[in-house]
Amino acid sequence: MEERQRELAEQEKRLKRNMSRITHKIAVISGKGGVGKSTVAANLAMAFAANGYVDRVGILDVDIHGPCVPKLLGVKGRRYQVSPLGLGALPIIGPMGIKVVSMDFLLQSQETPVIWRGPLKMQVIRQFLADFLWGELEFLFIDVPPGTGDEALSVMQLIPEMDGTVIVTIPSEVSEDVVKKAVGFSRQMEIPIIGVVENMSGFTCPNCGATINILGTGGGKRISENLNVPFLGKIPIDPKICEEGDKGIPFVVGHMNSPAAKAFTEVVTNVEAFLKASHARELTHRRGR
Amino acid sequence: MEERQRELAEQEKRLKRNMSRITHKIAVISGKGGVGKSTVAANLAMAFAANGYVDRVGILDVDIHGPCVPKLLGVKGRRYQVSPLGLGALPIIGPMGIKVVSMDFLLQSQETPVIWRGPLKMQVIRQFLADFLWGELEFLFIDVPPGTGDEALSVMQLIPEMDGTVIVTIPSEVSEDVVKKAVGFSRQMEIPIIGVVENMSGFTCPNCGATINILGTGGGKRISENLNVPFLGKIPIDPKICEEGDKGIPFVVGHMNSPAAKAFTEVVTNVEAFLKASHARELTHRRGR
Repeated sequence: MEERQRELAEQEKRLKRNMSRITHKIAVISGKGGVGKSTVAANLAMAFAANGYVDRVGILDVDIHGPCVPKLLGVKGRRYQVSPLGLGALPIIGPMGIKVVSMDFLLQSQETPVIWRGPLKMQVIRQFLADFLWGELEFLFIDVPPGTGDEALSVMQLIPEMDGTVIVTIPSEVSEDVVKKAVGFSRQMEIPIIGVVENMSGFTCPNCGATINILGTGGGKRISENLNVPFLGKIPIDPKICEEGDKGIPFVVGHMNSPAAKAFTEVVTNVEAFLKASHARELTHRRGR
Repeated sequence: MEERQRELAEQEKRLKRNMSRITHKIAVISGKGGVGKSTVAANLAMAFAANGYVDRVGILDVDIHGPCVPKLLGVKGRRYQVSPLGLGALPIIGPMGIKVVSMDFLLQSQETPVIWRGPLKMQVIRQFLADFLWGELEFLFIDVPPGTGDEALSVMQLIPEMDGTVIVTIPSEVSEDVVKKAVGFSRQMEIPIIGVVENMSGFTCPNCGATINILGTGGGKRISENLNVPFLGKIPIDPKICEEGDKGIPFVVGHMNSPAAKAFTEVVTNVEAFLKASHARELTHRRGR
């Protein structure tokens, strides 16, 4: 028992050291699944890497049961290696030097479901943060599985210094109710809300050019106004996003001129602005003390 | 401690008695969120109720963090009442006498996130099954949150006599990998797989009539063939499904002649055929003994 406690304390130290070497940690969350949260996280990582931070971006996929990030970044099927000095495991290196850690790289086969209860999940998340050699990074994006259960709680408790949350939603009203919970969650956890992204917002028919609001429209913006949180932008539905996702090419890179990629650039700009403002606030705060 | 154990044993008895009065229990699951699992569950419940089982269908929404079923059935905002005799809580009565139990009816406000770890969730799921007066039912549909974690495990362990699982997916390849896990989960839990539903399969532009495969196509069918599980049918994307969902009108009822509703009828027929065949197998099995 004593040994176990010592081990945990050691791990906690490694976790703190690891995290202290990463300037910004951003959690990408959603109240509801299937809103494209992993797609947004992967594209955020790519956009920041492409924007002057090659080799300085990491992405942690905390979805234990259905990890998607490796596929979206085209590194599916790879296996972790342990560092030559035995200091820890090495993240998988994705496009533009993005460091990727995901349950997916540990699975024997695609059919293997990870049938785990909460405590075991907390343990593996702790390992992802403490026992991988993340190195010096400017940004770590954390793809947190939907809901406000074990995984989300663990992440927020393990990284209390999180810069903030990016909340991804789709425009339907049903989702609106659920995203309110994500806002409530961030507030209860006292993590700043960077803002809301409305994904899958409207669809332009590639045949006739008509725009159809398959999932309704404006839900994300409405929520932002009602709950008084920043709105980061809306990303239209684009069959290419899905196709390219299936091929492992994030659309911000594969189709830089598509309306979706352009819309995404706005999101990136807004996230950057938040980080800058929050950095400025911190400096003022420090000077004030 | 002894008191707590006695209480648990009593609850277990109530749970068994409750479940023994429900002929068919069907879990609607998915590896991934946002594939329309709750929409499929709500429409299955409606279709069966409309098909000769008014007042004989129940739906249990096991999604603790983002319950959607009440909104989809138009009963959002209602509150549970305790039975006059103090025997238990009464499910909310939805359209066509569908009995609905969901975390949603317990929440103070839409903003309230349920920030709970696994053990607490197991407890509330046990209560949903044991302490509500479900009565005599022909069908209970259980909307299980995505993934193979605490909620899914709890449901399968608490109802070992489950008729089977309906696995909902969308056609993209990324989802294909995740649905394989749902199949693996059912198999490991030794719960029969009723089959796979491919949701959001193709979109017909209401303006020009062109069919666009927004999320790819055929993924559900491909998985079924590869993994040797029945394919129950595919349901096209229909903006009305979402609109009506937002209004609390399941589309099988609101738009019976739409391609989506017709496609859904095929799914219902296939589920019925499974239940009949499995009933026949059971009779043969009993005679054989």
